[in-house]
Amino acid sequence: MQIRTAELFWKLPSRKGLLTVVFGVCALFALAFTAVAQNMPDPLPSWNDGATKQAIVAFVTRVTKEGPDFVPPEDRIATFDNDGTLWTEQPMYTEFVFTFDRIEQMAPRHPEWQTQEPYAAVLHHDMKALAASGDRGLFQLVVATHSGMTTEQFSQMVTDWISHARQPRFKRPYTECVYQPMLEVLAYFRANGFKTYIVSGGEQEFMRPWTERTYGVPAEQVVGTTLKAEYEMKDGSPVLERLPQIDSIDDGPGKPVNINKFIGKRPIAAFGNSDGDQQMLEWTAAGSGPRLMVLVHHTDAQREYSYDRASSVGKLDKALDEATAKHWIVVDMKNDWKTIFPGEHSE
Amino acid sequence: MQIRTAELFWKLPSRKGLLTVVFGVCALFALAFTAVAQNMPDPLPSWNDGATKQAIVAFVTRVTKEGPDFVPPEDRIATFDNDGTLWTEQPMYTEFVFTFDRIEQMAPRHPEWQTQEPYAAVLHHDMKALAASGDRGLFQLVVATHSGMTTEQFSQMVTDWISHARQPRFKRPYTECVYQPMLEVLAYFRANGFKTYIVSGGEQEFMRPWTERTYGVPAEQVVGTTLKAEYEMKDGSPVLERLPQIDSIDDGPGKPVNINKFIGKRPIAAFGNSDGDQQMLEWTAAGSGPRLMVLVHHTDAQREYSYDRASSVGKLDKALDEATAKHWIVVDMKNDWKTIFPGEHSE
Repeated sequence: MQIRTAELFWKLPSRKGLLTVVFGVCALFALAFTAVAQNMPDPLPSWNDGATKQAIVAFVTRVTKEGPDFVPPEDRIATFDNDGTLWTEQPMYTEFVFTFDRIEQMAPRHPEWQTQEPYAAVLHHDMKALAASGDRGLFQLVVATHSGMTTEQFSQMVTDWISHARQPRFKRPYTECVYQPMLEVLAYFRANGFKTYIVSGGEQEFMRPWTERTYGVPAEQVVGTTLKAEYEMKDGSPVLERLPQIDSIDDGPGKPVNINKFIGKRPIAAFGNSDGDQQMLEWTAAGSGPRLMVLVHHTDAQREYSYDRASSVGKLDKALDEATAKHWIVVDMKNDWKTIFPGEHSE
Repeated sequence: MQIRTAELFWKLPSRKGLLTVVFGVCALFALAFTAVAQNMPDPLPSWNDGATKQAIVAFVTRVTKEGPDFVPPEDRIATFDNDGTLWTEQPMYTEFVFTFDRIEQMAPRHPEWQTQEPYAAVLHHDMKALAASGDRGLFQLVVATHSGMTTEQFSQMVTDWISHARQPRFKRPYTECVYQPMLEVLAYFRANGFKTYIVSGGEQEFMRPWTERTYGVPAEQVVGTTLKAEYEMKDGSPVLERLPQIDSIDDGPGKPVNINKFIGKRPIAAFGNSDGDQQMLEWTAAGSGPRLMVLVHHTDAQREYSYDRASSVGKLDKALDEATAKHWIVVDMKNDWKTIFPGEHSE
């Protein structure tokens, strides 16, 4: 049949005319498709056009298009650090601000805290003494303020606090000090069949009350540092009592451990911004097939903050070296992002 | 326009004729819809019609239909115990069979096990000595056989074992000793927008390699007992090494604790079969709005097994009393289930 049609075609008197029509129709179709493609809304409008944006879009296109690099939707797992990757972590991790506010609030019931470190340092705003108490002191404060109540009571405390607290420099709620370009990445990934997870050093129950509203990430996709809890009957009703003991720390090498525990699948894309994300990115990179590893580099002192190797908050040193050596994507906040926070005008 | 059309309608000469046609068309539509409804396939064909099946269907209908009891899809969380609820747990928990097989396999590298309990009990098939070692002995065996390798190596071991091992009475793979009526419940819940989770005392990594294929439950929705793991670099590649330490035990009061940790939402439906599920059902029941608590009662010695209060495997005693007192649903396997395993003929 094919041969016969071809023969007929070549035997026709106005061959050239027909060919012109065929090519013309093809050209029209091509134009129409280009127009449609051009009219498709940009999924990342707050990103400047350039290598970083192109790399993100190219990765998503590659894993969602039929072909050798296609990844089925059930394996499209993307993990995102929170502090410094999705929201501002300067001048101090938001959860520490919450912790210090809780210490002040609890102090009347703990007169001994006036002289006992690390509590006294917080109550007397003695940052030097606080720094001297180290990570151990900070964990002690977190544990003291995050335990001794039920999970539901704690969730309510967080909800109340986060609706009132304001970031000191930008004078807006912390949940509005989230990065508009990263909100677009989250939405873009989900629109392409990804499950987006938060994998953060922040305490899990501190994040869950507001992540769905703020990031579109539901509670079951929020992995964080956890405290131990205990099932108890109180007045005939079961409650989960939060205990003053760390269950697991979701930072550094704890991130791949928790990714395996909570998700049970290796991410194909991971976003972080500090040395605490290094192992998560390594773990993501070590899988087979296409991979996307991204570090947000805070390079914009004017619109947000500028810090990396020397910062005590969100230190980015070893991970930056590894990113350079392994050609991971490093976002240059100043040059790659048109806007920083939602509701701002592009510059 | 509306008024005018109506006027025109009433002014038409053959009003009665038109009305007849309109009503006729309506009646035809009504008939067609009824036929469609009646022809809708039964979502639970392996369940005998009766109070139990009705209660399950009524619950799903109630929470998915617009009205005061409507539950939005993101809150439709249903949790399922595994051993004895989704698959056979007699004459011995499947994971213990795997554990004992591993002990035999590892024994040549551990000559000391020949005389050291609880290992010796397994190697000499001394069930009395094994029983004497108690839960502590069993955990020791589980830990010894489930650790000392990477997560990927362990996953491969489970995959190999489960494809070869056969349930001793039914002579079929353990993954085919799953309950057909429960597979239908899982599918029915998911078709109605539920997220279905396994929350089991079994070790998490022992379940994940086969739950998607067997139950349609992906790795990230499998919660179980966990071992600690450690992130390590081996020959320049990162691995997660499984350590010989229990991380958390997902049984009894550990189930609501882990539901909160892994899911962060309270289930509105929970299915179990033993006292190990009592707190999960209590926790589910204590939420507001419609709730479904179900216990599978093994009452069918002929087609499967019959056991409850006196059984050392899947003991159902206190939870049965609570179910009776609180009117939870108790499935009478013998009378409620037409078939037990997939591929069997209905009786």
